[in-house]
Amino acid sequence: MSQVRSTNVDARASLARLFAPIAADLAQVDRRLQTELRHPNPFIDELAQHSFRMGGKRLRPALLLLAAKAVGPVTDDHRTLAAVVEMIHTATLVHDDVLDEADVRRHLDTVNARWNNQTSVLLGDFLFTHAFYLASTLETTFGCRVIGEATNTVCEGELRQTAGAGNFWLPREEYLAIIEAKTAELCACCCRLGAHYAGADPAVEDKLRIFGRKLGMAFQIVDDLLDLEGEEETTGKSLGTDLANRKMTLPLILLRDQLAPQELSRLQGLFEESDANHGGMLVSWLEESSALQAARLVAERYAMEAAGTLSGLEDTDAKRTLIELCRFVVARNA
Amino acid sequence: MSQVRSTNVDARASLARLFAPIAADLAQVDRRLQTELRHPNPFIDELAQHSFRMGGKRLRPALLLLAAKAVGPVTDDHRTLAAVVEMIHTATLVHDDVLDEADVRRHLDTVNARWNNQTSVLLGDFLFTHAFYLASTLETTFGCRVIGEATNTVCEGELRQTAGAGNFWLPREEYLAIIEAKTAELCACCCRLGAHYAGADPAVEDKLRIFGRKLGMAFQIVDDLLDLEGEEETTGKSLGTDLANRKMTLPLILLRDQLAPQELSRLQGLFEESDANHGGMLVSWLEESSALQAARLVAERYAMEAAGTLSGLEDTDAKRTLIELCRFVVARNA
Repeated sequence: MSQVRSTNVDARASLARLFAPIAADLAQVDRRLQTELRHPNPFIDELAQHSFRMGGKRLRPALLLLAAKAVGPVTDDHRTLAAVVEMIHTATLVHDDVLDEADVRRHLDTVNARWNNQTSVLLGDFLFTHAFYLASTLETTFGCRVIGEATNTVCEGELRQTAGAGNFWLPREEYLAIIEAKTAELCACCCRLGAHYAGADPAVEDKLRIFGRKLGMAFQIVDDLLDLEGEEETTGKSLGTDLANRKMTLPLILLRDQLAPQELSRLQGLFEESDANHGGMLVSWLEESSALQAARLVAERYAMEAAGTLSGLEDTDAKRTLIELCRFVVARNA
Repeated sequence: MSQVRSTNVDARASLARLFAPIAADLAQVDRRLQTELRHPNPFIDELAQHSFRMGGKRLRPALLLLAAKAVGPVTDDHRTLAAVVEMIHTATLVHDDVLDEADVRRHLDTVNARWNNQTSVLLGDFLFTHAFYLASTLETTFGCRVIGEATNTVCEGELRQTAGAGNFWLPREEYLAIIEAKTAELCACCCRLGAHYAGADPAVEDKLRIFGRKLGMAFQIVDDLLDLEGEEETTGKSLGTDLANRKMTLPLILLRDQLAPQELSRLQGLFEESDANHGGMLVSWLEESSALQAARLVAERYAMEAAGTLSGLEDTDAKRTLIELCRFVVARNA
């Protein structure tokens, strides 16, 4: 357990250090992304280059490359697929920015000042379709199929999340199913593809797939925690958005499930009318309870289980980095 | 030319008659679509079934199946690909409904009352990714690659259209390049896939691809004409949207390019402030000029050229239907 204990760390510097063994490959993937996203039309070129800079951590390409390296040599297919998964991740980020009509007034400040909803939708679609095209340049349909399935599951997860918004009684199992679909599945897909295209046998491919899924679960739970208790300056994004969108995440679910009926209705009241004020009250309540810590423990358990799935693998730099990554994912503050 | 002269016809009935030779295959594609879009989650299932009913003419699957039949036997691969292209077309329709923040007030009535922008985006993504997954179940990457390229071109066309919105001086060539990308490319892709998976040799595959592209050009020009002069009741959709969105389409471009400088600035003024009133004045101006008729002649020329590309093909029911379709596309009133 001590292996994945949470302490705040400088996220960027840690990741740069962690990814050192694959730095050259990641740089090639970045160049590949940048080249693929060049376009003769100046407007499309500007949009595509902007989206290239939107991606941040390059976590998904790194997972794919590290999973490959833990099994065998990194090939050009890996770098192509790493560009594909990053493009897909960027497409989902671009589409996340599209606002609900009801939110327009409230969120107008945060919208990219230069473009509108329709441009965001089209840019996301442009990235999605380019990613699928790129995947189809490999020799077999395996990559297309695995990526098609995984991204469809991501959309399913996001739709279930939309359907569950505002539901104070969202079961813990449904929350976990949603984050498994919307986040963990793509991480699982990255690790699986990395292993598969490095020639892993099916058992090893499956181990790495499970590793990715569990790591993705830990990652999303911590993301949801940071949305409640993080610092906007450190994370570099707006926080408190889950409460503003009436999204039940793990800490609130854990708090809810331990309350007496009278307290429950007060919590529900705060949740259902959570504006900036009530949001603050909810966060204080969470901080006074053990719910934030309990949620963190759940994330740490997933991270530990992820590290555990690699136990049978040969001891390599890449394997050590993947285990380090489990620690990073729960310790990060951004 | 008489083959593709415009006369109003009852569009639905004409299509049903036209598609009679492939009615059984189209019914199978519909069943396939409906099955593929079933989902265990009730919310996703409702959305997906709704989107299934959104598609209308089934023009793209029909093109794919007819191109196949013009060359050889229709196979299960064709029916899979026909479902894929219809799913992609539906995804683009769903995403077309997403509103720009600036348009929210004006268009709120037309938004699907049940869902919001974010749900539309996610549903479109769900359809896109499902379509790509379905394409990847074929044996080779050919289908994935052709569909990936074509849909990427569609997005490029839509982005170029967005970039050109409000530009009174949009060159005629840019208008044609936009509709080629956003509409004609997917029609070309359908015909190409139909021919390819029926075992066509490269020359025949190319003929059918060109046929699809030219038919798609005619189709879109007529669509743009209907947006100016159609009847909302007949077409079943809101019209005048191009003017409302400051989109230069062929009739307006042709009118512009024949005006004297003084009239030009009056036209530009009406275009740049086109609300309901000015829109009406623009349409009257177009009706008094020869521009509507000139645009229709351009559509008819494309349709005639499309029919011409099939001249070397064996005379079959399917070929005759494709030629009939050229006539229908320019004669339709919906």
